[in-house]
Amino acid sequence: MNDLRFPTGADNAELAPVLTLAEQLATMHAADAIELLNELELSESIEILADMPHEHAVLILDQPELHDAASIIKGLPAETARQLLDAMSIDRVTDIFHEFDTETRARLVVGLGPETTAALRKLLRYPPHTAGSLMTTEFVSVPSTWTAAQTLQHIREVERSRETIYAIYVTDPATKNLLRVVTLRRLITSEPDASIMSVGRDVAPVTVAPLTDQEDVARLFRKHDLLAVPVVNDSDQIIGIVTVDDVIDAMTQEMTEDTLKFGGMEAPNKPYMQIGFVQMLRKRAGWLGVLFLSEMLTASAMQHFEGELEKAVVLTLFIPLIMSSGGNSGSQATSLLIRALALQELRLKDWWRVALREIPTGLVLGSFLGLIGVVRITTWQMLGLYDYGQHWPLVAATVGTALVGIVTFGSLAGSMLPFAMQKLGFDPASASAPFVATLVDVTGLVIYFSIALIILSGTLL
Amino acid sequence: MNDLRFPTGADNAELAPVLTLAEQLATMHAADAIELLNELELSESIEILADMPHEHAVLILDQPELHDAASIIKGLPAETARQLLDAMSIDRVTDIFHEFDTETRARLVVGLGPETTAALRKLLRYPPHTAGSLMTTEFVSVPSTWTAAQTLQHIREVERSRETIYAIYVTDPATKNLLRVVTLRRLITSEPDASIMSVGRDVAPVTVAPLTDQEDVARLFRKHDLLAVPVVNDSDQIIGIVTVDDVIDAMTQEMTEDTLKFGGMEAPNKPYMQIGFVQMLRKRAGWLGVLFLSEMLTASAMQHFEGELEKAVVLTLFIPLIMSSGGNSGSQATSLLIRALALQELRLKDWWRVALREIPTGLVLGSFLGLIGVVRITTWQMLGLYDYGQHWPLVAATVGTALVGIVTFGSLAGSMLPFAMQKLGFDPASASAPFVATLVDVTGLVIYFSIALIILSGTLL
Repeated sequence: MNDLRFPTGADNAELAPVLTLAEQLATMHAADAIELLNELELSESIEILADMPHEHAVLILDQPELHDAASIIKGLPAETARQLLDAMSIDRVTDIFHEFDTETRARLVVGLGPETTAALRKLLRYPPHTAGSLMTTEFVSVPSTWTAAQTLQHIREVERSRETIYAIYVTDPATKNLLRVVTLRRLITSEPDASIMSVGRDVAPVTVAPLTDQEDVARLFRKHDLLAVPVVNDSDQIIGIVTVDDVIDAMTQEMTEDTLKFGGMEAPNKPYMQIGFVQMLRKRAGWLGVLFLSEMLTASAMQHFEGELEKAVVLTLFIPLIMSSGGNSGSQATSLLIRALALQELRLKDWWRVALREIPTGLVLGSFLGLIGVVRITTWQMLGLYDYGQHWPLVAATVGTALVGIVTFGSLAGSMLPFAMQKLGFDPASASAPFVATLVDVTGLVIYFSIALIILSGTLL
Repeated sequence: MNDLRFPTGADNAELAPVLTLAEQLATMHAADAIELLNELELSESIEILADMPHEHAVLILDQPELHDAASIIKGLPAETARQLLDAMSIDRVTDIFHEFDTETRARLVVGLGPETTAALRKLLRYPPHTAGSLMTTEFVSVPSTWTAAQTLQHIREVERSRETIYAIYVTDPATKNLLRVVTLRRLITSEPDASIMSVGRDVAPVTVAPLTDQEDVARLFRKHDLLAVPVVNDSDQIIGIVTVDDVIDAMTQEMTEDTLKFGGMEAPNKPYMQIGFVQMLRKRAGWLGVLFLSEMLTASAMQHFEGELEKAVVLTLFIPLIMSSGGNSGSQATSLLIRALALQELRLKDWWRVALREIPTGLVLGSFLGLIGVVRITTWQMLGLYDYGQHWPLVAATVGTALVGIVTFGSLAGSMLPFAMQKLGFDPASASAPFVATLVDVTGLVIYFSIALIILSGTLL
């Protein structure tokens, strides 16, 4: 983003640089202005937004791509901040209030418009990652008694400030229940005196509850190719809508979280360079420590086979190779199953069908790696590159057989872990690659030494 | 999906089961009918779609969620297939033609309507994962000389068959250049005799080229909260639009590919249970084999330190623990940087800023794990749980110091790998967890034994 630089031509910039910058930003695409603002210090951003025409500041603050929007608003004079918050879209204001400390919340909520306050009180109730937390309370709703012409007139007069109208929601005037969803296209091609109910398609509207998880909301958008989905309460009354742009942002956020979880760490909620050093350590040290403590079991396993190790040091040469193969095949299987479960290609009860596929897959893949291993030991021995001792064919057989066992175990364990996570009520994506590797490492060592005891007993051991 | 079962009541199902099923499916939400069809055998699906009313079959075949759509169409009588293809949305027909074998393509393209043929010829040119391959050629375009009323009239008469109109694209009547994008909301709130040019917002339209990568298209949708983006050729003429539902599908596909790549395998293009056994082996064996061959370097490294190993078997006890810690810290750093690069929070040239953060992070995390390691050895020794020999304090010091070095190296290598991938022209997401682990394993062993040589020289070694 460093490529983007503000023009600093001597003519005007030197006279009143900050004011000029605010003016310049006001003429750009909001998204581009945001990229510039994200490069600046907080104090500079605050100064610029304070100087910017009101409607441009609103456009910019409305975008979730602006980092530190909460800190910027916190830094503005209270009156300016309130005017901006009143004009911004309510779902964005809610996100920002979630980031405020209690003191700032209390300070700024006083003096907000009654509409904003009411909507905010409603939206702040919903936990993050739910439809309620994504939704906006700004939508077009008309009673089912209206005609198409009345609805059009209403949009022309009352709703002209909205940039996008996703759909018109038709409700029962008595119960306020949601009855139909009408698209703008259908509205403008309908007869003016047709009832608004007859304009919409005669199917039950696709809806979500306020506590529906955002991943399920995204799945519904994919399944029905939606632009917006109404959020309804228990009495089937519409309380808001979730729009596709917020779903895309949520999908992006989920993707980041899932990648980081799979990499074995807690997902931070900030861009890499903005995570504080201590915060970064905390996000990483937790899992790293847990994995380290679990991996200590490998030391215990090794200690258990101490006698064998001393008699046959040659076996230690292949420990890293064998362990990593188990971890790698496990990591492959885990990534496959995380996605299959996320896309609902498979359900929890399909676990045994997966197990029945992973076992033969692991056997073949293990035999493939085992064969390479045997060829490698034989070649080195034959070419005199290394001497594995007089019993080298048995050592090769041990390594080959262990690889079959460990890769099969890795594939099976790796594929079952996401199911286990889901069964335990966690996100299947919590099954991280390092977690699988650790699980497989300990068992892998036991498999390796057990096979060695069988094959090498009487010769090396 | 097994929960969904068709009613098989004896009254009607036994008389004409297939026809009844086709009729039943025709009354459902297309998305739900598709879930049922996906459970059936191919031959059954073909029979059902052949019997279904034309417009319902079109609705169902238009959804990318229907598996095997290409095989179904291939199995239908040629005349039925052509009628369906002519009525389906052109971007979907293109996807299906991409899946057809040459013989089927040749057989079905003859007799398609001239419009479908022309659009198909255009769209089939674009490689997968590009804006061109995602776009549809069905959009509303009007000359800049028209008024708002003329445009509305055009939509009422000509475009009434479309379910959704994302926007109206205003072009220069002479050059056909794209000049403005007008939303339906603005159109209906404008004065009827206003020029269509004055209705749109006076900003340059956000556009993409047909060869723009789909990840960049998705980024643009996120940045500007788009519902559709026009695709323009080199002469700035609009040749199609990419709509938000296709972008969501593309994002989901990319997410699956990235997860599987990070897990260390090639992404299959089918749901887990539909991947053939041999195909599954192929997708996994490639990377597994490459990683295995690279990991063989660990055996070479161990062979190199053979003398030390024989003298100090106690050192081998901690090999799995130390290696996995390097791999885990590397996997964390890689997942962090893959996302930071994907979200363009960081650019290629920021690599040194990242390196300068990862080195201290790795040092602290390594010291943390090293401390746990030292405590563990000391405790076991003191409590008499295991005897690490008379030089156990030196062994503990070796393990602790090695952990600092290896975790630091893991964090650094893991964070630099995605940059290296991008620099080499690959997707940063190709830097998989097993790849990082393998890279760190070999170096980790060398670090461990080098530190052992320094600390234990004269005592154990």
